[in-house]
Amino acid sequence: MQHQTSIPKAVVILSGGLDSSTCLAVAADQGFEPCALTFDYGQRHRVELEAARRVARSFGVSHHLVLELPLRKIGRSALTDNMEVPKDRSEIGGSTIPVTYVPARNTIFLSLALGWAEVLGAADIFIGVNALDYSGYPDCRPEYIRAFERMANLALKETVEGRLTIRIHTPLIHLSKAEIIRKGVALGVDYSLTLSCYDPDPEGRACGRCDSCRLRKRGFQEAGIPDPTPYVD
Amino acid sequence: MQHQTSIPKAVVILSGGLDSSTCLAVAADQGFEPCALTFDYGQRHRVELEAARRVARSFGVSHHLVLELPLRKIGRSALTDNMEVPKDRSEIGGSTIPVTYVPARNTIFLSLALGWAEVLGAADIFIGVNALDYSGYPDCRPEYIRAFERMANLALKETVEGRLTIRIHTPLIHLSKAEIIRKGVALGVDYSLTLSCYDPDPEGRACGRCDSCRLRKRGFQEAGIPDPTPYVD
Repeated sequence: MQHQTSIPKAVVILSGGLDSSTCLAVAADQGFEPCALTFDYGQRHRVELEAARRVARSFGVSHHLVLELPLRKIGRSALTDNMEVPKDRSEIGGSTIPVTYVPARNTIFLSLALGWAEVLGAADIFIGVNALDYSGYPDCRPEYIRAFERMANLALKETVEGRLTIRIHTPLIHLSKAEIIRKGVALGVDYSLTLSCYDPDPEGRACGRCDSCRLRKRGFQEAGIPDPTPYVD
Repeated sequence: MQHQTSIPKAVVILSGGLDSSTCLAVAADQGFEPCALTFDYGQRHRVELEAARRVARSFGVSHHLVLELPLRKIGRSALTDNMEVPKDRSEIGGSTIPVTYVPARNTIFLSLALGWAEVLGAADIFIGVNALDYSGYPDCRPEYIRAFERMANLALKETVEGRLTIRIHTPLIHLSKAEIIRKGVALGVDYSLTLSCYDPDPEGRACGRCDSCRLRKRGFQEAGIPDPTPYVD
């Protein structure tokens, strides 16, 4: 006899990087069935997509949706255009927003997550944004996330008809990179499967010098955990 | 000598239907340079895309971006799936939300409009939603639009750094279909170029019986303006 599963589904936005992979582990640890949502948005670091697939497999995720998004047509980001990814920046997480910023990226990602959540009947969406160690992106701040959540609960058939209340979970938002790594290790994340680099080489190896690589390196150092990443530099 | 144009750009979401085409005319009439944004989201009514191109051309729009969106992969709408489009419904615009509802559609559309607006340096986004004659969609209501606008002003580099304040314009939100048609005719919209039908035949002719066709027919009747649409029924 087949039993109806009572595990609630949650949509987890999964890039295949360190933060989103940890976020997936947190969702599973909190008792959700994580449904992974990955975006193929013409990013230069497309090997990320392979990392996302490896991570999802390692957690036995049964729903993994990869959506193609033509963000390149909108343009103007070092992550999608032929602009130089900045290396060895003296100030990370400061007041200037770097050229790796993709216009409205988290808003676009969360909107699609919202559509999928409604179809899955999932009230919960996880996104691994971080306001502390972050790279200076406005759509990683708590006030932005709360405003998105409020809008989401006015947007959907399921929310308006009272069957669903959307919660946007940001379990990493106040953690340092070192704390994220410690949490992930405790929850069984294999960080050798993940990729954080904005500008990997053709073999998919992390450059070691972009903001994302440097935050990652520093995080492992501060956590006192060996970094399994094979950096070029 | 070339002069810098001082006409502010506005992103106008243009499906090629009656409402969005009127909305484009309103944006132009209000002194904006309309930049048209059309979504190819696997809709059954793909001839809409041709209508959008015709309408944009007729207004001399110089920026018309058509973005492919894989909403079909998210699923569950009569507009993208192989579900039957309801015909001859007794109650239109009532309390039940019909199967033509696409999960989070306006949120997804507005999010991409927001990204493009930031790239264009446009503070203004026009969307032809309608709360009066509408088909029962939650993301056409004023409270939803205000919540989206509030979120948008927390989401962007340009807004957070104080260079841009996003305004979501919904000039049709409180108009009846007849009032929309009268306004459009006054502003020079050629409605024979537009297509509203959810389920056109292979030649692109409107069915005449879906909610959208029936609202359109009734609108022209109430406006006392001849309907240029060649309906099948």
